[in-house]
Amino acid sequence: MTQNVTSPTQQCIFCAIVAGQAEASVVYEDETVIAFMCLHPVTPGHLLVIPRKHAVGLEDLDGPTGAHVWSVGHDMSRALRRSDLNCEGINLFVCDGEAAFQTVFHFHLHVIPRYTGDGWTIVPDEVERERSLLDADAQTVRNAIALTQ
Amino acid sequence: MTQNVTSPTQQCIFCAIVAGQAEASVVYEDETVIAFMCLHPVTPGHLLVIPRKHAVGLEDLDGPTGAHVWSVGHDMSRALRRSDLNCEGINLFVCDGEAAFQTVFHFHLHVIPRYTGDGWTIVPDEVERERSLLDADAQTVRNAIALTQ
Ligand SMILES: [Zn+2]
Ligand SMILES: [Zn+2]
Repeated sequence: MTQNVTSPTQQCIFCAIVAGQAEASVVYEDETVIAFMCLHPVTPGHLLVIPRKHAVGLEDLDGPTGAHVWSVGHDMSRALRRSDLNCEGINLFVCDGEAAFQTVFHFHLHVIPRYTGDGWTIVPDEVERERSLLDADAQTVRNAIALTQ
Repeated sequence: MTQNVTSPTQQCIFCAIVAGQAEASVVYEDETVIAFMCLHPVTPGHLLVIPRKHAVGLEDLDGPTGAHVWSVGHDMSRALRRSDLNCEGINLFVCDGEAAFQTVFHFHLHVIPRYTGDGWTIVPDEVERERSLLDADAQTVRNAIALTQ
């Protein structure tokens, strides 16, 4: 559960972008967030929304900042749909932790325009889980919700 | 860009869950959203947060409802991290449109606990995109942002 909080120095590439010390193709910015093109895009138009203030992930990102990142991601999705990129779908994606594909440890929301046949695939396909197991999973999560309130 | 808005009748399985007419293993609910275990989980603990009011996707989902779905997803992520499921990471995932893996056309946020070696994979790996192309992409998106404001 514990995550190391990287100090927001030059070792964090996204903090360097926020500070204007690293190159980025910016599409939007305000006091709280910046949105810029992903350097390793899944598809053309793939962009990232990040908080200016360093946070590693969902554990240390504060609620209002997270909600604002989401809202800007929502706006960017609508813009991508209307853009000349002619995308047919959108994925919003957060990778929180190494086990969840996170590679840059400054929180970011991926906004990924999708095109039929673009080759992005997720494996394996899921199978249906028994209701009794789902009920047990739900009880486990409800127990944890009670702990966090 | 246009999406057909399914009427929120019995043909929408998530509207049926909201109406109490279909089974679900609920972990959280309030006036605006419900969170319940995904029937086809990527990993044990995979849950969905949905708005009670039918919306197909990011196009017809209103901003405040979307932000609340996000906030509850953030809370659920923190609960999963503290739960006995012992997950090591979290993915938040929205699939908006058929080209983006959407299969149920009632907006939903996936909250997916991750475990090292759980076998969930995304292919292919991305390659770096030239700055000149990123700058052109950014210009295309900025043009569309201007249209949406
Ligand atoms: Zn940083
Ligand atoms: Zn519905």
